[in-house]
Amino acid sequence: MLSQNLKESLIGCSILVQRRMDDLLFNDFSDSRLVEAMRYSALSEGKRIRPFLLMASAQIFGVSALDSLNASVALEFIHVYSLIHDDLPAMDDDDLRRGKPSNHKKFDEATAILAGDSLLTYAFEILADPQTHSDPNVRCELIKIIAKAAGFAGMAGGQMMDIEKSEQKISKETLARLHRLKTGELFMAAAESGAAIGRCGLDERKALRYFAHDLGLAFQIKDDVLDHCGISLGKSDIEETHHKKSKENASIVDLVGLKNAEEQLKLLHEQSIAHLRIFGDKAKLLVDLTEFVITRNT
Amino acid sequence: MLSQNLKESLIGCSILVQRRMDDLLFNDFSDSRLVEAMRYSALSEGKRIRPFLLMASAQIFGVSALDSLNASVALEFIHVYSLIHDDLPAMDDDDLRRGKPSNHKKFDEATAILAGDSLLTYAFEILADPQTHSDPNVRCELIKIIAKAAGFAGMAGGQMMDIEKSEQKISKETLARLHRLKTGELFMAAAESGAAIGRCGLDERKALRYFAHDLGLAFQIKDDVLDHCGISLGKSDIEETHHKKSKENASIVDLVGLKNAEEQLKLLHEQSIAHLRIFGDKAKLLVDLTEFVITRNT
Repeated sequence: MLSQNLKESLIGCSILVQRRMDDLLFNDFSDSRLVEAMRYSALSEGKRIRPFLLMASAQIFGVSALDSLNASVALEFIHVYSLIHDDLPAMDDDDLRRGKPSNHKKFDEATAILAGDSLLTYAFEILADPQTHSDPNVRCELIKIIAKAAGFAGMAGGQMMDIEKSEQKISKETLARLHRLKTGELFMAAAESGAAIGRCGLDERKALRYFAHDLGLAFQIKDDVLDHCGISLGKSDIEETHHKKSKENASIVDLVGLKNAEEQLKLLHEQSIAHLRIFGDKAKLLVDLTEFVITRNT
Repeated sequence: MLSQNLKESLIGCSILVQRRMDDLLFNDFSDSRLVEAMRYSALSEGKRIRPFLLMASAQIFGVSALDSLNASVALEFIHVYSLIHDDLPAMDDDDLRRGKPSNHKKFDEATAILAGDSLLTYAFEILADPQTHSDPNVRCELIKIIAKAAGFAGMAGGQMMDIEKSEQKISKETLARLHRLKTGELFMAAAESGAAIGRCGLDERKALRYFAHDLGLAFQIKDDVLDHCGISLGKSDIEETHHKKSKENASIVDLVGLKNAEEQLKLLHEQSIAHLRIFGDKAKLLVDLTEFVITRNT
């Protein structure tokens, strides 16, 4: 089980995820350029927020971190694939990722495209494996939840929208939709996957989904606020949402002003925690995570 | 059920696959640029050899074409994604595909990357759906078979190898391995998926896998032979394996000569059909398919 102390459990989750990723990417093909490129991006520093969200959600229903680890790693592989592809010259054209050369800078474009493709494919191979969950119905459910969130109706659709809208004037509503697709969907899939592994009821699953929706949006707004205030974000996960081209899109602060953005953040904080009320103390880690996301200075 | 006449059943399969792909790609997002790009490549002309291989394998065990249709379509989506990404400027840099502008030429590179990513992701969403098969164990098995064949240890690994080796002198053995990864693995996955849906025994499954291995290799060698003889391949599926950069790799005819290549083809023909003997008349379509692959003039 993860510690009830947020900082400790974030570190614990990060170590578990790192080790399992290392294991899963150590195989007969480890010497190949392709697996080297997959390892390069997957094993580089990251806060592992999505795996944590999945694990902490599953833990509400008594599922141990180890029993939700494979699903968490698969989800993180999908997040990493999206970062590799988003960084490509044809997309956001970023030379750096987490303070290191992006995948196509370290290797080359062809390798980066194939490394992203292979991480995405591997994620589903892992999710379908009995080691991820003993019940094949749960495994299929996880695959459906995560594939839907990552595909044309989710994250990939959001990235497409981001590129299409980057040179247009954008409304507050369109920006919110873009954020929901590009970031929110995978946050929601993380929480819902935890719920699926925990085999909880529909009301509890919905509550977790709504919570993750608000958390994802708050995460984006906080990023915009920090960015506006000129605080350097350092080499953290937070960098992930900042790209050359994406930055051409107006931020929420540009659209509604700093005061309103902070007001919205406060509202989202209250709203997201309200969704967790039905879980009582069992959702302590998620409540603390929300507090952390909203009050962070970096 | 597919007709026992090869030509009729190839056409029948092609129509079924086309319709189901059209249905699956008609949704709330059909108007988006991303789904338009997915439809453009998926619904363009193609022989649908891989779906046919899956369906004809499943039919040996009494499974109807409709009952193996979703799996066949998912597999074809993965084949189409690989064509879109292989055509990219950073990869094989092909402007044409099946006689039409390749995806990134018709749209742009970012859209083509995302359309490929989304077809790959959607394939797994379809495979995990109860409509694909009523038994979740079979669905998970299909996902594992297909993901493994498409990933770093299969097709993506083969494409990486193709790019790496394109400027090096290549041995006969290395070329065979490259072909096995890049083309053979998905052929084998098609036949094995049919076996999984048909819930056959291990010996039968192995026989189908070996058969598809030989068929895939024969398919490649025949391509090389036709290419060597300067026969125009026209707008067929066969074009798919011919890329600017790939062509820089020596063909099997360059390495062993035309006579030896044709000799090997004859051997593979006999060998592949021998694997089917345990199925008797039930494998007639697959026997005829092999004959067709080896004797075709285009």
